[in-house]
Amino acid sequence: MKVQKQIASAGYVSNGFINRWQRLIKDTVIPYQYEVLNDRAEGAEKSHVVQNFINAGKALRGEDIGDGFYGMVFQDSDAAKWIEAAAFSLISYPDKELENTVDELIDIIAEAQDEDGYLNTYFTIKDREKRWTNLLEAHELYCAGHMTEAACAYYEATGKDKLLKVMERNAEHIYKLFIIEKHEGYPGHPEIELALMKLYRLTGNKHCLELAEHFVNVRGVDTDYYAKEKLQRDWTVWGNNAEDKYYQQNFAPLKEQSDAVGHSVRAVYLYTGAADVASENGDTELLAACRRLWESITRRRMYVTGGIGSSLNGEAFTVDHDLPNDTAYNETCASIGLMFFASRMLEADVDGEYADVMERAFYNTVLAGVQLDGTKFFYCNPLEVIPGISGVASTHWHTKTQRPGWHACACCPPNAARLISSIGKYAYGENESTCYCHLYAGGGISFANGVKLCCETEYPYGFTVKYRVEQGSGRMAVRVPAWSSRYSVVKNGIVVEVTPEKGYVYVDISDGDELILTLDDTPRYVYASNDVPELTGCTAIQRGPLVYCFEGADNGDILPLALKRGGKLTVSDERTEQLDGAVKITAEAYRSEHSGSLYSFAPPAECPCEAVAIPYYTWGNRGENQMRVWMTEVR
Amino acid sequence: MKVQKQIASAGYVSNGFINRWQRLIKDTVIPYQYEVLNDRAEGAEKSHVVQNFINAGKALRGEDIGDGFYGMVFQDSDAAKWIEAAAFSLISYPDKELENTVDELIDIIAEAQDEDGYLNTYFTIKDREKRWTNLLEAHELYCAGHMTEAACAYYEATGKDKLLKVMERNAEHIYKLFIIEKHEGYPGHPEIELALMKLYRLTGNKHCLELAEHFVNVRGVDTDYYAKEKLQRDWTVWGNNAEDKYYQQNFAPLKEQSDAVGHSVRAVYLYTGAADVASENGDTELLAACRRLWESITRRRMYVTGGIGSSLNGEAFTVDHDLPNDTAYNETCASIGLMFFASRMLEADVDGEYADVMERAFYNTVLAGVQLDGTKFFYCNPLEVIPGISGVASTHWHTKTQRPGWHACACCPPNAARLISSIGKYAYGENESTCYCHLYAGGGISFANGVKLCCETEYPYGFTVKYRVEQGSGRMAVRVPAWSSRYSVVKNGIVVEVTPEKGYVYVDISDGDELILTLDDTPRYVYASNDVPELTGCTAIQRGPLVYCFEGADNGDILPLALKRGGKLTVSDERTEQLDGAVKITAEAYRSEHSGSLYSFAPPAECPCEAVAIPYYTWGNRGENQMRVWMTEVR
Repeated sequence: MKVQKQIASAGYVSNGFINRWQRLIKDTVIPYQYEVLNDRAEGAEKSHVVQNFINAGKALRGEDIGDGFYGMVFQDSDAAKWIEAAAFSLISYPDKELENTVDELIDIIAEAQDEDGYLNTYFTIKDREKRWTNLLEAHELYCAGHMTEAACAYYEATGKDKLLKVMERNAEHIYKLFIIEKHEGYPGHPEIELALMKLYRLTGNKHCLELAEHFVNVRGVDTDYYAKEKLQRDWTVWGNNAEDKYYQQNFAPLKEQSDAVGHSVRAVYLYTGAADVASENGDTELLAACRRLWESITRRRMYVTGGIGSSLNGEAFTVDHDLPNDTAYNETCASIGLMFFASRMLEADVDGEYADVMERAFYNTVLAGVQLDGTKFFYCNPLEVIPGISGVASTHWHTKTQRPGWHACACCPPNAARLISSIGKYAYGENESTCYCHLYAGGGISFANGVKLCCETEYPYGFTVKYRVEQGSGRMAVRVPAWSSRYSVVKNGIVVEVTPEKGYVYVDISDGDELILTLDDTPRYVYASNDVPELTGCTAIQRGPLVYCFEGADNGDILPLALKRGGKLTVSDERTEQLDGAVKITAEAYRSEHSGSLYSFAPPAECPCEAVAIPYYTWGNRGENQMRVWMTEVR
Repeated sequence: MKVQKQIASAGYVSNGFINRWQRLIKDTVIPYQYEVLNDRAEGAEKSHVVQNFINAGKALRGEDIGDGFYGMVFQDSDAAKWIEAAAFSLISYPDKELENTVDELIDIIAEAQDEDGYLNTYFTIKDREKRWTNLLEAHELYCAGHMTEAACAYYEATGKDKLLKVMERNAEHIYKLFIIEKHEGYPGHPEIELALMKLYRLTGNKHCLELAEHFVNVRGVDTDYYAKEKLQRDWTVWGNNAEDKYYQQNFAPLKEQSDAVGHSVRAVYLYTGAADVASENGDTELLAACRRLWESITRRRMYVTGGIGSSLNGEAFTVDHDLPNDTAYNETCASIGLMFFASRMLEADVDGEYADVMERAFYNTVLAGVQLDGTKFFYCNPLEVIPGISGVASTHWHTKTQRPGWHACACCPPNAARLISSIGKYAYGENESTCYCHLYAGGGISFANGVKLCCETEYPYGFTVKYRVEQGSGRMAVRVPAWSSRYSVVKNGIVVEVTPEKGYVYVDISDGDELILTLDDTPRYVYASNDVPELTGCTAIQRGPLVYCFEGADNGDILPLALKRGGKLTVSDERTEQLDGAVKITAEAYRSEHSGSLYSFAPPAECPCEAVAIPYYTWGNRGENQMRVWMTEVR
């Protein structure tokens, strides 16, 4: 087991597929979100987040606080996520105007910090006395975490440390409270754990590590903390149930947990922080718990699209193998969090399994969250959508048939923006001896050890990945995904006979070398375990990392369609520009006739036909129509 | 179209299959429920209903009201349903002790009636000033309806009119309020409409008809009634949403409605009353609305088991073709209400389609509601149950793997008891010219026109129905179900060539005739319309009126099982006594191997095998195990 750290994404400049997405974030999402933050975006719900920071600054100076606070208790985090996305974008695409805009916002934020280091506009404007009295609901540590992540990213991108210093002071404030003064409790919404680890790695400040360890390990030790806290306060944000210890992942110390439960975003943020801590301090017991939780998710509670948190009730994990297609909640943020978790597990233990899941989540659920033109966003990612039921029936109100615009609770869009902008951090890694290529992200990458690579690929639509060593030498580890039943590695025109070790092939490289990895481009049928009641008798299609789906736009009514077991899958020669250059796949299928009645004895007559599949992430870009990932099979 | 009335069930004494069920109700359910009503049943939640009536009587006499009122706002109705079930049972099985018990209870109830005719213990004990101020939630009209039904049944059974007179006075009280004094509004929970029609037919009191017409027709004329009522009161029972006009079926006048919506029990009770009114007063517009609502249910919103109201949210209808198996709410009471509705439609228009649905609901969902030993009851009737998910996941908490005991809100058990006890009312009917046999209910039946029949059959496990004319002569109509693809009618040993007219064959009969109807006993595969997303690629098994299911007890793990399309279905020669004498059916099937992983590319290997099905209504009688009605198909 080798610990390997994420490299600074400063080293990655994309091309190809990733570049298009990063450009979309830079050119469309980041500018639009800035308008939202400033309440200038047409059609978007009021944000007021920038004004909240201005008003908090005024409050601290004893000035008139104007229109006070507006928005969710965690409104601050929207500004933080925007800064983080902008920062990551600036790494690849320097933009003086954007940088100035960020600087101005940071100036406003810095003015909102109290002299003791506290930073939160909700409490500073509304009631300073209530600080830290409602960890369950009030998201103070969550907001601090996001702003800390933003500070780290902006420092990485620009070397400017104003926000970093603000957040270091904030971390010291929290350290004093929870470590020195021994304030009880732990975050209602985990997030600060992973943020503190970033701050620690950037600054070397041991207090950050200590605080992260504290929050990870203290959770669930006193399982009644939230209930006691609730008794001691006379106010609430949402009336959350302090006793729901599964929702809050505090039914036991994390080290004793084995099932991924509760609010799925909170869960994976927590596990990410825990894995981060474990890989840093070598706590094998904690890492073993992370591994159990990883297996709980990926072996029993994850959709084929990398979606997690199947239930609308609490946006939560439910029980093993409960994976309904049509009512799946599958929040975009949860799959982003799963990528976080996977990336930290990969740092603790280089195993292609983590990168395989990271890729599954990214190319399917995370990208599906964003309309191809960058203007609308899915918060929920079901695997079946039927107009007339989806978005209409009370059990399906969350599964929209079309991506909605920016919500007031806009967690997913900025989360997707910062993830896509920083994909280099997930695609590459390194340790003392080796440069790791986890994902096939086209572009130039500079490792800290001096190696520079250029990666060229049309992945996920091309299956050849060419790495050119532009500088340095050493050892390179390239992942071979479990889905690729065959592969070849060619170095400077000569086949290299290598066998993957835990999903990676290791090759020595020198300046000027050209390494070509070729993966299996065969489209495949996927089957689910019989333990999943929803998926018995069904099959799906996958090619490379892309899970496909069938949409009405290509097929008319898709409900009468069944795929032929083992039927030929034909990959289109063309790229569909309208759908992000997607490659469609045609499957042998049968279409059954509609019987007139609800129930009848005659098996519906069926005729052979073709059914056309598109990558799941591209669905919902051609108007309202049916969509299905899992199809019934004729065998 | 001929109007034909229900006959008095006084004319029916069961034998065979029905007799076993009626005996179970008489010997087990009715005595147990009486203990519940008197808070003497071990393990049952507190009822207090008899004590409520005693206390209400005390309150009226100005005595100390003791421990006051306890229970739901509609607690009175539990006593009413018990009396009604007992009354129906007394018709077939005279029992002096039971009759005395009912008389005593009626004496107590009569004491609880106010001098103005008002009868409701909740308001009489708690706050007389609040009478009639909360039609939305307080169930006053609902309780009055149930007590009226009880009064009619007990009068039919015994000729005793004490309770009947109480409820006539009560009806006059309500008439005065809503018709003479023009009190606004309509029942939050419909029920009184159909009860008033029973009282009208028994007493000829035109006020009852007028009042029933009023409640049916005034509903949804002022769609804001509940909202206005809410503004005028300073109290609530459950905080119901007065604006949910679909839940309350008041989004438009009933005559303008076309979709079955909202709380499914309330819906079918309302439609029953409406059909009753329409068949009495000849309102063709109202009848046309009933027909549209009937089609909405039976063509697009009904399970193959006759279950309705698929959603847990509001125990309600949702949208067309939204028929999930595993989360189906399908309240037992809703299917009972569907039988009510069907029976009234049948009175308005003799068409076998209504009786077919009545039978589907009865032999599947209604009987499934009752444990075979009569001690436990399903309130919800899903079509798939998987231990570990069902009853555990938050979206499945209502779909129990085992029948629970008697709830505090015990709507379903006494409802099933009164339905089963009075099945003769649904099985037989008559008008001036004809004796109708709608269901095949073994036993003796006396029609008002003097005809006496004896029916012998092992139905639903035997498919020969023998009618012997024991007295009288005239015309007899016997239903031939749509599911029976062949049939024969033999009269006195000679085949009668008859073709069904709208589902009925008409035969002239005389004293001493013997008529034998033979129906198709072939087990059949059932297919659902492709419009139902949940059921694509699936098939179920039906034989006669019985829908079958597969249970773990016979098959081990049922999730890897798939049925062979067109595969042979073998009907067992044996009756399984443990399962109500059920006849099992063995189907050709395939069992696929479990793959180790959640998702994999290899289609699971499968081997031919046999799968054993049991009638759906008998499931859950052999401990906790898996159950499925709809199976995937290999074709």
